Order: sequence, then structure tokens, then C-alpha cells
Amino acid sequence: MKNLMRILITGVSGFVGHHFLQFLYNNRIDASVLGIDIRLPMYDVKKYKTRFELQLCQMDMLVQSEVAVAVENFQPEYVIHLASYSSVAYSWQYPEISFINNTNIFLNLVTAIRIHQPKCRVLSVGSSEEYGVVGEKDLPLTENASIEPNSPYAVARVSQEMLSKVYSNNYNMDIVMTRSFNHTGPWQDERFVIPGFIKRIKQIKNSGKCSGIIETGNINIVRDFIDVRDVVKAYFLLLKYGMSGEIYNVCTGKGIALYEVIQMIGLCLNVQVKTNENPAYIRPRDNAIVIGNNRKLLNRLEGKWQPEISLKKSIEDMLYCMKEK
Amino acid sequence: MKNLMRILITGVSGFVGHHFLQFLYNNRIDASVLGIDIRLPMYDVKKYKTRFELQLCQMDMLVQSEVAVAVENFQPEYVIHLASYSSVAYSWQYPEISFINNTNIFLNLVTAIRIHQPKCRVLSVGSSEEYGVVGEKDLPLTENASIEPNSPYAVARVSQEMLSKVYSNNYNMDIVMTRSFNHTGPWQDERFVIPGFIKRIKQIKNSGKCSGIIETGNINIVRDFIDVRDVVKAYFLLLKYGMSGEIYNVCTGKGIALYEVIQMIGLCLNVQVKTNENPAYIRPRDNAIVIGNNRKLLNRLEGKWQPEISLKKSIEDMLYCMKEK
Repeated sequence: MKNLMRILITGVSGFVGHHFLQFLYNNRIDASVLGIDIRLPMYDVKKYKTRFELQLCQMDMLVQSEVAVAVENFQPEYVIHLASYSSVAYSWQYPEISFINNTNIFLNLVTAIRIHQPKCRVLSVGSSEEYGVVGEKDLPLTENASIEPNSPYAVARVSQEMLSKVYSNNYNMDIVMTRSFNHTGPWQDERFVIPGFIKRIKQIKNSGKCSGIIETGNINIVRDFIDVRDVVKAYFLLLKYGMSGEIYNVCTGKGIALYEVIQMIGLCLNVQVKTNENPAYIRPRDNAIVIGNNRKLLNRLEGKWQPEISLKKSIEDMLYCMKEK
Repeated sequence: MKNLMRILITGVSGFVGHHFLQFLYNNRIDASVLGIDIRLPMYDVKKYKTRFELQLCQMDMLVQSEVAVAVENFQPEYVIHLASYSSVAYSWQYPEISFINNTNIFLNLVTAIRIHQPKCRVLSVGSSEEYGVVGEKDLPLTENASIEPNSPYAVARVSQEMLSKVYSNNYNMDIVMTRSFNHTGPWQDERFVIPGFIKRIKQIKNSGKCSGIIETGNINIVRDFIDVRDVVKAYFLLLKYGMSGEIYNVCTGKGIALYEVIQMIGLCLNVQVKTNENPAYIRPRDNAIVIGNNRKLLNRLEGKWQPEISLKKSIEDMLYCMKEK
């Protein structure tokens, strides 16, 4: 009998959950996977079932008993916690819903693990939003930079991280944490910044023009975009090799301004793009520059990982996927 | 018509809530008070009703709609948030219950205020537990000391504080925060350390002996005990004069070892007390010394406040109250 990795994935139906399954598929990982989510996946799961055991279970993780039953019955060796209400904008509109759907679902998860499967390894995925207001002198941000969360979403993520440390230190649970920077890549929803730009620039192209104007927010801001496929590879390796109780930035270590991203998309589509700043799209509290330092992750994974997919490649692949679709 | 201060007190039935009402009574504050709590007070409220308007309302603050109705109907100008599951030990036994009964009740409260009474001033009471693991070089702890919460209770308190800052910065809410150190004083429950010592030393005296042995945990630890009457005075003044968005330590600035407290109680009762350390009572993660710096509070309240009640006076008053009872 094969020795299967028993992996519980929360938030399996989301963008990162989908790519995590794809990673297992591409790398022919011998796994038995339980994927849970508040809704069933919109993507086709049949192909994954040909390569590894995959069960899906629809549940609201706010219901503690359901999470407990899932953990008790499945007995995971690894848990990757991707479930999250991850929109900062939503957290401003509905702070309480956002907060409990981040912090309380995590609390229900670690409680279930503490009681039913305490030796299992957990990857608690956090966010670069935890750094909050970024001082330029701290760039690129190391894991020791100060934490000043500035949205309900960011507070929830910091709470999750503090709880991870408390459970790890005091119940000897095996929890590895991340602070993950902006992801992008194929299948990302058009509400996110890069697919949003792509959509609008494709509209210009589709209308038969070779140049056009798009309305934007502040496109001088600089972000550290990492391809989701590099992200899920890091997550898989952290599940295996991360140091218990430690936090790792997941990022490229390089920043790019949004106007450069727009020009890159324009080049790929052979469209000349001009931009028009619309004050309605400006987010008043956005940091000018957010770039992470990934040295700790690189050191820990000792040559097994580095960001491999350039932003240009991400964009090309996103365009290709949109065409296919 | 008199200009009444409209004050909403959460956790009115607790130790600090009781003293806050007593403060309003003693100082003949013209107030209209709504006190909410999950259970009705065990103390007699009649005398308070002779001096100020007092309504009581039993509710579970985890039910958002009930909190919202209370805030909407009462329209407080001031809210003092004392409701809390404040036992660290309990938070180890039932981390999830402790967490939601701190963080989520606060979230329900600030949401209700944000929607129904956004201009009202809120005092968000926090705890010295937020400092977590204390380095001796940081003593006495200022508000800038590092925050390393080390229990589920402490994480909940830090989350409450981070949420306070986010709501204060981003919704322009008027929130003042405290980190309050160990309180003691009349009416405190015997599960707490000083009333617990008093109870056992009184038992020696009541049995007719003038000396005896009590079992203790580590009595070399040093804490900053502040009389609850000094605490509620600080809270009242912070409601009036605190700087919005700021955090204030509420403490004496002085530390005392538990063995000194025991000797002090022995002297008051004229009992010679010996102690026997029982490993079952030792808390493995206790800080050796916790002392706060109260300079920021003193400066802000400019001569209107300083700790006035010595620990000896607290103990004498506790003994007097126990006799009366």
C-alpha cells in the first residue's frame, strides 16, 4: 500500500485551493485530500480524482461541530488553511462578517485539530496586509518589521497569527505561518487588479482598436506580485519543511508599479494603453510601496524553492487561459 | 432640566462595574446609566437609583441585534466596556469560548456604536496581559513595550485593541484604550489571588490559632496591584479627558511580591503566616515581574488622578467588607 499524504485543504474551491490541487496533480503527489469550502468548486475536479484521492465537503467553518467532525473523521497529517474572506475592501463594508469569517473559522479549525488530531502539521496562511502602514525604511519587509494592521481584515489576520503562536507555544501544536504578498495568475477573479486590467485592455483589443484609455486608481503604487503557482509550491514545501512556530514571507522580493504592469499587458496584447486616473478608484490608505524580503523562506527551503514564474509569464498564461475559456 | 451624562456600562454586574456605579454614587455624578450584563447584579442596586437614573438590561452580547437595540434606544454619550471573560486560566481551558466572549462581544459593541451612535466616546478596557512575555529591561512597562500575547485571553485583548485603533483611525470613532494591571479591592471574588490569601488566613484566625501554614504557588512573583477604586476613577476621567485613539496603562507603577502581600495580610489579622509552595499551584508561564509605568496616564489627567489607595488600605477595606457581609 502506498503511503499517502493525508491533506486537509480549507477553502479548496478558491483560487489558491484550485492551484494547490493542480500542484498535487502536476507533481503526481501520492495524496489523500479532503477539501472543504462553503461552496463546491466551480472548476472541474474529475481530472484530479484520476491522480489522487479527493473528497469534497461543503460546510460553513463558523459551525464548530462540522469542522470538528471533518478533522476527527479524516485524521489529516497536514492542514493547509486557505479559507478566508480575503478582500480588504469587503472588510471595510462588512467588518464584522469579514472578521469572524477569518478569525473564528481559524479558531474552530485549530480547536478541532487540538482535540482530534494534535500532531498534525498546520499551515496558517496570512497576509502582507498584516504589516499595515509600511515605513519606507523597512523595505523590503522582513518578518521582523513592525505590525500595524490598518483594516478589519488585517486585524483578523494578525489575530490568526497570534493565536497560531499561542497554540504552537502552549499546546505544542505544529503550526507554520505565512505572510503572503499579492498573488496573481491564471483563473484569478477579475475583481483583482491584474485580471481587471487585462479584462479592460482586452476589451479595447476586441473592439478592433490598437490603442485606448482605461480608468485606474493610483497606478504609481508598487507591489510585490507573485505567481500563484510559485505560492502553492512554497505552501507545499512549507508543509513538509517549514520550521514549526515560524512565520515566512511568501513573495518575490521585487516590486513593480501598476503602470508598468499595464504597459506589460499592453505589449502582450499589442495595444497602446493610456490611463486616466479616476479619484473614485483611489484607496486613501494604500501604501506607496509594498515589497517583501523572502530570504527566510529561501534559506529554509534550501534551493528547493525560488520564484520561477515572471510576471510577464503570469500575464501570458492568464491571457491564454482566458482564450481557452 | 439637568444635563445628564448618558453612560452605557457593559459588564455592569461584575466587580469593576459595581465599583463604577459606586464611583458615580460617591461623586454625585448627574448621570443616566444603562448597565448591561449577561446576568443581573448580585449586589443591591436600589441605593444607586436614589442618586442617578439606572436601567439594567440582561443580554448576551454575542447576540449582535440585542447590542444594537440597546445602543440605538439608549443613545449613550459614553460607553465603558467592562464586559469580559477575564480569567487567563479559563482561557486555557476553553480558549474558543474565552476568545469570542472577548473579541466578538467588542466587535458587536463597536459595530452598534458605529451604526447607531458614531459620535459617542468609548473606553475600551484592555489588560497588562497584552504585554505577554515581559523582558526585565522593559520594566516598568510603558505603552511602547513590545506586545507578545501568550494566552488566548491575551490575544483576544490585543485583537480588541487593534480593532479599536482601526475603527478609531478609519471610521473616526472616538475610542480611548487602557491596559489595566492587576486590580484588587472590596467585593473581589475569592478566586483572585489577594482575596484568596485573605480567605485562607482568616480561616487560620477563625480556628482560634495565631499562626498557621497556607499552600501557595510561586510567591516570589512581583505584580503591580492597583485598588479598583483608583481604577474606576481613572476610567471615569479617561471617558472625559482621555486622548482619542490613545492607550493608557492603568497601574500604580510599583510592584510588590506575593510573599509581601501575605505578610501584610498576616499583620492586619495578627496571624503569623508560613507558606508551603505547592507545585500544583505554580503557573509555568508566569512572568517573574510585571510592573507598569503610569506616566502617560498621570500626564494626561494632569493632577486629577494618581493612585491614592495603598495596598494596605485595600486589604483593610477588604477585611472590613468581609466582616460586614
